[in-house]
Amino acid sequence: MTERLAHDHSLPVNGDHKNEYLFDADLLQSIFKQYLLKDHKLEGNIYDGKYLIRPLSLKDYDHGYIDLLRQLTECGKISYEEFQERFYEMKQCSNTYHILVIEDMNLNKKIIGTTTLVCEKKFIRQLGVRGRIEDVVIDNEYRGQQLGKLLVDLLTKLAKEKCDCYKISLECKDNLIGFYKQFGYDHEDKQNYLCQRFQK
Amino acid sequence: MTERLAHDHSLPVNGDHKNEYLFDADLLQSIFKQYLLKDHKLEGNIYDGKYLIRPLSLKDYDHGYIDLLRQLTECGKISYEEFQERFYEMKQCSNTYHILVIEDMNLNKKIIGTTTLVCEKKFIRQLGVRGRIEDVVIDNEYRGQQLGKLLVDLLTKLAKEKCDCYKISLECKDNLIGFYKQFGYDHEDKQNYLCQRFQK
Ligand SMILES: CC(C)(COP(=O)(O)OP(=O)(O)OC[C@H]1O[C@@H](n2cnc3c(N)ncnc32)[C@H](O)[C@@H]1OP(=O)(O)O)[C@@H](O)C(=O)NCCC(=O)NCCS
Ligand SMILES: CC(C)(COP(=O)(O)OP(=O)(O)OC[C@H]1O[C@@H](n2cnc3c(N)ncnc32)[C@H](O)[C@@H]1OP(=O)(O)O)[C@@H](O)C(=O)NCCC(=O)NCCS
Repeated sequence: MTERLAHDHSLPVNGDHKNEYLFDADLLQSIFKQYLLKDHKLEGNIYDGKYLIRPLSLKDYDHGYIDLLRQLTECGKISYEEFQERFYEMKQCSNTYHILVIEDMNLNKKIIGTTTLVCEKKFIRQLGVRGRIEDVVIDNEYRGQQLGKLLVDLLTKLAKEKCDCYKISLECKDNLIGFYKQFGYDHEDKQNYLCQRFQK
Repeated sequence: MTERLAHDHSLPVNGDHKNEYLFDADLLQSIFKQYLLKDHKLEGNIYDGKYLIRPLSLKDYDHGYIDLLRQLTECGKISYEEFQERFYEMKQCSNTYHILVIEDMNLNKKIIGTTTLVCEKKFIRQLGVRGRIEDVVIDNEYRGQQLGKLLVDLLTKLAKEKCDCYKISLECKDNLIGFYKQFGYDHEDKQNYLCQRFQK
């Protein structure tokens, strides 16, 4: 009995921890409010009466979050324990990983969209913070409903207004330049993106 | 007296904490060994008998680390307390911030070069890690001695061999493409870097 208690202690204390968010949902409130003024489809954190927008939570493992990411790139096999470990590694890096998800409230809380804002802490720019938009994907059965636009716009505003980023960037294929230009992203003069990949 | 002790407790316990490194120096040992075979100027972590290569430490605030960064971009005014706070914020994000510095052992331990490897934790690519090379600068009085090359090469190897990155990237001006190509970095087909900056 003592042993079981000791073991339980190493887990999050709240029995309901699967509802725990990766980042503080309060950060989003004032960003949602800006939308209420201009987009009547968004009421609080619900879009079009059926899509809930919120930070990633542990329970999203059971609602297709990883399968959604597979529409973007390979993910391999990921157990719940591995997912949970990575979730807490991200959460332990304070003010860094902001993963937004869209849940279809009518379809078993299925996760049908996600986008990440990663904030990098710097010494330059007076201890500045640099934002990056990563891993944008909307389930292919839900594209064309302005959901991708909403996520990228929300995270861009979050970066500017709450995370105090001095700049925010992303990488994308040629065919998506137009998609990102609508939020203010553009090429920078004489700036190059160079990369190398390692074999596993 | 009790109050003073309580206050001291909130500081790092080791009185010698200014020598504390931002990341585990052991990570570099096997990387240095590869150089011993091919570059006779590098012996352990000392290059050319006068330059010490190591992780950033708190004491580097007193040895010109921020002034060196000013050769790259604006840094504003940064107090020691602010520097220390950011240092610990970075350190608290485990396996994320790897800042290498070069110390001139003959000139009051002046910091004359630095480069950063930032590792981003992902869910995609089977809980993959993506590396980025950031904030590369060699003091203008020390350029042309292969020091920039050494730092970028060390961090690229660190990303691949110790941090297990599946890819590593950077952004640079046109005139530095040649510099980075020698380490294996290159443009990727149809891949674009888009950015926006926010006024403070
Ligand atoms: C890119 C993606 C996220 C867009 O999501 P979406 O929800 O279908 O897009 P939206 O409905 O929000 O589109 C909003 C607007 O952007 C426009 N748009 C969408 N894709 C575009 C593209 N490739 N180029 C230019 N404009 C585009 C739409 O026409 C729409 O314009 P409108 O406001 O005038 O109607 C989605 O197609 C996707 O998940 N693709 C696969 C994964 C991927 O490539 N991710 C990006 C990695 S960088
Ligand atoms: C870029 C920088 C770090 C290079 O450091 P450095 O110590 O002077 O460079 P090195 O002596 O290690 O150069 C190594 C090799 O790269 C070559 N090289 C250096 N700069 C180069 C450039 N701009 N383009 C092509 N090759 C270059 C050198 O000719 C040398 O070649 P070699 O091995 O054949 O002799 C340094 O110039 C600097 O700090 N610049 C200002 C800050 C900056 O622009 N940082 C980069 C931000 S992306």
